[in-house]
Amino acid sequence: MAITETITQHFGADQQPFEVGRIAILAQDAPLKLDCGKEISNFPLAFQTYGELNDDKSNAILVCHGLTADQYVASEHPITGKEGWWDLMIGSGKPIDTDKFYVICANVLGGCMGSYGPRSLDENGKPLGLNFPVVTMGDMARSQALLLDILEIETLAAVIGGSIGGMQALAWAALYPSRFRHFVGIAMGGSLSPQFFPFNEIGRQAIMVDEGWQEGDYANKETFPSKGLSVARMAAHVTYLSEAGLHSKFGRDLQEKDDVSYGFDADFQIESYLRYQGKNFVNRFDPISYFYITRAMDYFDISQYGKLSELFAPCRDKRFLLLSFSTDWLFPTEKMRDLVRGLNAAGVPVSFAEIETDKGHDGFLLPNDDYENAVSGFLKGIEL
Amino acid sequence: MAITETITQHFGADQQPFEVGRIAILAQDAPLKLDCGKEISNFPLAFQTYGELNDDKSNAILVCHGLTADQYVASEHPITGKEGWWDLMIGSGKPIDTDKFYVICANVLGGCMGSYGPRSLDENGKPLGLNFPVVTMGDMARSQALLLDILEIETLAAVIGGSIGGMQALAWAALYPSRFRHFVGIAMGGSLSPQFFPFNEIGRQAIMVDEGWQEGDYANKETFPSKGLSVARMAAHVTYLSEAGLHSKFGRDLQEKDDVSYGFDADFQIESYLRYQGKNFVNRFDPISYFYITRAMDYFDISQYGKLSELFAPCRDKRFLLLSFSTDWLFPTEKMRDLVRGLNAAGVPVSFAEIETDKGHDGFLLPNDDYENAVSGFLKGIEL
Repeated sequence: MAITETITQHFGADQQPFEVGRIAILAQDAPLKLDCGKEISNFPLAFQTYGELNDDKSNAILVCHGLTADQYVASEHPITGKEGWWDLMIGSGKPIDTDKFYVICANVLGGCMGSYGPRSLDENGKPLGLNFPVVTMGDMARSQALLLDILEIETLAAVIGGSIGGMQALAWAALYPSRFRHFVGIAMGGSLSPQFFPFNEIGRQAIMVDEGWQEGDYANKETFPSKGLSVARMAAHVTYLSEAGLHSKFGRDLQEKDDVSYGFDADFQIESYLRYQGKNFVNRFDPISYFYITRAMDYFDISQYGKLSELFAPCRDKRFLLLSFSTDWLFPTEKMRDLVRGLNAAGVPVSFAEIETDKGHDGFLLPNDDYENAVSGFLKGIEL
Repeated sequence: MAITETITQHFGADQQPFEVGRIAILAQDAPLKLDCGKEISNFPLAFQTYGELNDDKSNAILVCHGLTADQYVASEHPITGKEGWWDLMIGSGKPIDTDKFYVICANVLGGCMGSYGPRSLDENGKPLGLNFPVVTMGDMARSQALLLDILEIETLAAVIGGSIGGMQALAWAALYPSRFRHFVGIAMGGSLSPQFFPFNEIGRQAIMVDEGWQEGDYANKETFPSKGLSVARMAAHVTYLSEAGLHSKFGRDLQEKDDVSYGFDADFQIESYLRYQGKNFVNRFDPISYFYITRAMDYFDISQYGKLSELFAPCRDKRFLLLSFSTDWLFPTEKMRDLVRGLNAAGVPVSFAEIETDKGHDGFLLPNDDYENAVSGFLKGIEL
């Protein structure tokens, strides 16, 4: 099986080592060829599972995670101590019901929570840093398929992904249509709109401005570009909020004061909120992983796999559920309609709903009856 | 008159000294009290003029500039050598016709092109840096009014402002309704929407990440946070572009290559465009000025001066022209409609048009017949 139970790792300036959890060593027999042309072998993928795999291995669900999330989808995060990022959705009696399903979530290739990535060591024992190969959403899906091989699961009951987890799920639809029976795509799209390239680029540039960056060699020099990474997080976070939500949540409200300070401290609530988001992030994420995963996001374009009506054709015997959020700015409903049109043109059974919310892209992580009911109902219909 | 003809100054790491041009020394008899409560006196304001002042001094137009522009509105920039930023609009036979009008544009208070700002020296000969007082759009208007006093101009034929120059013009309407006869506000609004606070905040944070920042004391230490300032410019520039324009101008197009590089160089045209914008900016702008002017932008809210229908009441004998741009994201048409409603409620004659364009906020700097004709027609109607 080649599964290591736990490893410890650490990153960040003052970060203590933590236990990553379960690790599978993949591509032991044959190397994995990446989209960039490089080959990798004997590489780790860290993952968590929830629920029990049934005897005929027909109840497995793969959950693909977003940009800054990880495999701790429904269990306590080893660094922050917080509950899983999708605890809302996954568990006993929840929409992704662990009484019925065996849920797998792996840290993405290029990530920083135990999977093969820029913090992995080269043959000399030094972190790879920018020598790590550029990976794509397709490569992430390939590594997830290798994990299923090791777990001896041939076909998934469902592949599920939100945000750029949905891009990985789309790569599954393109690369492994025979290995899943149901598809749930949430708050995602077939490519990143050009409007959002700048946010990834600004984030990477901000990291490089930090003197702790050291040309990407910081891990070998015991520095850490935490201030730059914090700004990168702020830039990304902007895209997760909706204009309506910003108005109703913050407006031009001041932060615990009656008048502006005539200075550069956080006078406005939105400013202190963003600073808080930035500061919290740097304790649990690696800047070079941020480079690699945002790059995979830039590069992904479902049309690279062919015309939608053709590439989805092998999915005619699957069922798809697509959910967008009415105020999602990063992946607006229109982006998802493109996919719905493609699926319809391919004759694939697809249910599509736009969830009403003022929470923007963040809506997919937050309680909402319509949203939870849609996922719950779809998955209840799966026969094992 | 207390007008110094020229001074030289320089900023930036490798910047050569340049001649600023005309400077007026203001508040010599009485100090100017700022909104923050501090008083300033004997301070310089750098300005340029175009055309000739007529005998009864009735043909003066004040142009208020935007965040990163300056007084070189229709003449060669002393650092970049480029033509004035609004050369399109100002000159002989142009919409703001210098055969008819005497056009004045002053570098804003807090700016870095010769006006009193963070690069000004304290009594010990050191740059003020963050000891410069926080200034508001109202303070900028007050300093412009003092400049008119020195130029012995009591009443402007028109006050004109685009983007946050329009905020200064609104401050004129609130503070000095008796000192202008016409008002032109372009691509502006009565306040910054909460959605855009993050862009200013991210810019300032990115500057502070740069080791050249030195807690704002860089000028005294011969460093310069050029990389951070470049990222700040990129973050701001995002707000000037429209989604439609980004799609039509860049889309997901690659930069002079057939395939992605699988790396972190600028693969996409939008990336290299933003990098270019960032790099070009740092040779002509001061990071601490960026702090102060963005802060004035955050702080401005026309409603601080009262209810629109009441604060505009003294403008009943003026004429207003307001122009928005259909794809302006930073100051969308809806923001301008709020002002139009207020002016109508106050009984002020106002002409309002939304200019069709895919150029976003940048549209106010670019050729467009409807736009130019609207300004031209409005100003032709002014009797001197």
